[in-house]
Amino acid sequence: MARVDPALAAARAAVRAELADLPPDALVLVACSGGPDSSALAATLATESRRVGRSVRSPGHAVRAGAVVVDHALQPGSDGVARRAAQQCRELGLDPVVVRRVEVDPVVGGPESAARDARYAAFDDVVAATGAAAVLLGHTLDDQAEQVLLGLARGSGTRSLAGMPRRRGPYRRPFLGLRRAQTEQVCAVVGLEPWQDPTNDVSAAGAPLRSRVRGRLLPALEEVLGPGAVAALGRSADQLRDDADLLDALAADLLATARVPPGPPGGPPAGTGGTGPTDAGDAVVLDVTPLAEAPAALRRRALRAAALAAGCPAGTTTSRHVTALDALVVRWRGQGEVHLPGGARATRACGRLVLRSGTVPGAEPIPHHEE
Amino acid sequence: MARVDPALAAARAAVRAELADLPPDALVLVACSGGPDSSALAATLATESRRVGRSVRSPGHAVRAGAVVVDHALQPGSDGVARRAAQQCRELGLDPVVVRRVEVDPVVGGPESAARDARYAAFDDVVAATGAAAVLLGHTLDDQAEQVLLGLARGSGTRSLAGMPRRRGPYRRPFLGLRRAQTEQVCAVVGLEPWQDPTNDVSAAGAPLRSRVRGRLLPALEEVLGPGAVAALGRSADQLRDDADLLDALAADLLATARVPPGPPGGPPAGTGGTGPTDAGDAVVLDVTPLAEAPAALRRRALRAAALAAGCPAGTTTSRHVTALDALVVRWRGQGEVHLPGGARATRACGRLVLRSGTVPGAEPIPHHEE
Repeated sequence: MARVDPALAAARAAVRAELADLPPDALVLVACSGGPDSSALAATLATESRRVGRSVRSPGHAVRAGAVVVDHALQPGSDGVARRAAQQCRELGLDPVVVRRVEVDPVVGGPESAARDARYAAFDDVVAATGAAAVLLGHTLDDQAEQVLLGLARGSGTRSLAGMPRRRGPYRRPFLGLRRAQTEQVCAVVGLEPWQDPTNDVSAAGAPLRSRVRGRLLPALEEVLGPGAVAALGRSADQLRDDADLLDALAADLLATARVPPGPPGGPPAGTGGTGPTDAGDAVVLDVTPLAEAPAALRRRALRAAALAAGCPAGTTTSRHVTALDALVVRWRGQGEVHLPGGARATRACGRLVLRSGTVPGAEPIPHHEE
Repeated sequence: MARVDPALAAARAAVRAELADLPPDALVLVACSGGPDSSALAATLATESRRVGRSVRSPGHAVRAGAVVVDHALQPGSDGVARRAAQQCRELGLDPVVVRRVEVDPVVGGPESAARDARYAAFDDVVAATGAAAVLLGHTLDDQAEQVLLGLARGSGTRSLAGMPRRRGPYRRPFLGLRRAQTEQVCAVVGLEPWQDPTNDVSAAGAPLRSRVRGRLLPALEEVLGPGAVAALGRSADQLRDDADLLDALAADLLATARVPPGPPGGPPAGTGGTGPTDAGDAVVLDVTPLAEAPAALRRRALRAAALAAGCPAGTTTSRHVTALDALVVRWRGQGEVHLPGGARATRACGRLVLRSGTVPGAEPIPHHEE
C-alpha cells in the first residue's frame, strides 16, 4: 500500500474523530462552498463515513454522508459556482446534496454578518428537513487565527477573541487543527479542483478586511513570531472560549441577583407613575449594591447583558457604553442619563439602575436576549 | 499663553491623574533609562509634581520628584548611558537621582526576563531606601500592544495576553494610554535628546523578538486593521486582566477545596509508607471529585497552580503539561505517571491526584507558590 500523504492522513484522522460519537446510519452533512477547505472536507467525509469507529477490535459502522450548498446570490455567476460544488459532492458519492439559494440583507450588521446569518438559517432549515445529526464546517486553524486577530482589532474582550467553537449544536469543525495549506494539499491529492473565491484576492482594490488579514497580517505574524504563531493563536482561542463560557454564566447569575422583579400586574404602584424604578415591563431595573460588590469582570458583563435585555443591539453596544454604565454603579457622583445604542437610556435613582428601551411607551415588550 | 502641544498636554494629564491620590510631600520616583518614553515621563513628572490636585476650587499641593536609573551592564558603555540619563534627570530638577548598577544572570529564564528581574529588585531596593510612595514606569500603549502580541505567540492563555497592569504595588504606568510617538514628541517639545537603544534597531542582525514585533508586526497590524488597532489591543489587555484576576482567585478557591491536608504530624499513617496519597509535606495531594465537577477554565488553572506548588518552574510549565494533568482528572482510563518540568511527577490513585516534587526525599520542603 502506498504511503498516505501526511495532509490527507491528518484530514482523515480529524474527520474520523468527529464522527466517532455518531450512531450507525446517522446523516452527516458537509457544508460545501466549493472552495478548498470545504471541498477537502467533503472528500474526506465521503471516505471516512464508510468506516466510523473501525479499529483493530471493532468492525465499526457507517454513517450516511450528504452535503448542503448555499448560494448567497451576492455575485454574478454564484449559481454556477453552487451548481459545480453540488456536482462535485455528488461525484464524491455524497447523498443527499441539497442546494439552497438565500437572500442576503446587507443592511443589517454589514455584508459579512448578513451572509453568515442567511447561511446558518439555510443550514438550520436543511437540518430540520433532512433530520441530519451533524453539519461539518470546513473552518481551518488559519480561519481561527484570522478570527482572533479580527477580535483583537475590535478590542471588545474575551468573547470576541475566543474564535469559533469546535462544536455548537449540530455544527462541528473537524479542521480547526489543520492549516489551510493542508486542505489545499488534500484537494490536490484526491484530484479535486476547488473554486477560488475572487474576494479572497488581497491585491484586489477594496479587498475585504478578512482577506487582508489572511493575505498580509497572518504572513507577517508568522514571519516575526515564527511558524508556531498560528497554532498558538488557536490555543489562545481555545482557552479564552473556556474562560468566556464560565464568565458569561457567572455574569448571568449576577444579573439575575441584581434584577429587581417587575411590579404587581396592573401596572406600577400608585404615585410612582410609569417612570419609577421598578421593572414594569418596559425597563430593566437593577439593584446597584450586588453589582458594586461584584468583580469588574462580572459587573461589566452583567451590565452589557442588561443593555441587550433593554433592547440595545449587540453589534453596536461597545465597551465605551459599558464603561459609562459602570460609572453609574462604581463612580457615582450624580451624573445624568447615559445614552445607549438603539435609543435606550440608563439612569441611576435611589440605588437602582434603570435601563429603558428606545421604543415608545405602550409598544410591545422588549424581548430579553440575556446571554 | 502659547497653545500647549497636544502630545505634551496628553502626557501632563496622564501624569497628573497618576499623582492625584498621593499625599503632600510624598516622594515619587521615575524609572529612567534615558530612552524617549522614560525621558518624557521624567520631564512631565518634574513639571506636574509641583501642582498635584490643583484645580479651580483647590490650590493643590506638591510632591517630591526623584529618579532611579538602572545600569544593566549588559553592553559596553552602559555606565555612560546611565550617567547621562541621571544627569538629564538632575537638570530637570529631580532629586534624589539614584543610579544602581545591577548584575544580570542571563542563564535564568532568558536574558530579557533576567534583566527585568534584576531591574525590579533594584527598584524595590531604592523604594525601601528612599521611602518612595510610587515609582512611575514609562511603558506606552505600544509596549502594551507588543506585550499582547508576544502573549498571543506563546498561546498560553488569558494571563499572558493581559499585558501590564496600570498599577501594582508602588509601580504605576501613567503612559499606558499614550503612543510611543507621543513620548518622542514630548521630548522634542521640551528639548530633550533621548538615548536610542541600538537593540531596538529591527534591521540589526539577530534583532530580539520584541524589536521585531515593534518594527515589523505592529506596523503590519496597523496597516491592515487600521490606526485604532493598537488602542484596541490595549483595551483587550485591560479586559483580559480583569478576567484573569477573577479566574485566578476562583481557581485558588478551587485548589484550596480540592487539596487534601497533610497527615498527622510525625509522618503518614502506618501502612501507607511515604508514598500513599496523603499530603505528607513532600507532595501536593488533591481530591479529584471537586476538580472534575469544576468548569474547565478553573480546573486547568487550579492544576497549573498545583504543579507550581509541587515545585514546577512557572516558565516551563506549559498548556501541554496542564492538559496531561487534566486528562488524569476528566479522561481517566488508568494512564500512567505524568512527567512535569523540574522533575516533578503526577499520578492518580484512589480518586486522588498526587503531585510529587523532583527533589530527593528528605530534602527541604517545597515552597508553595500558590497564585
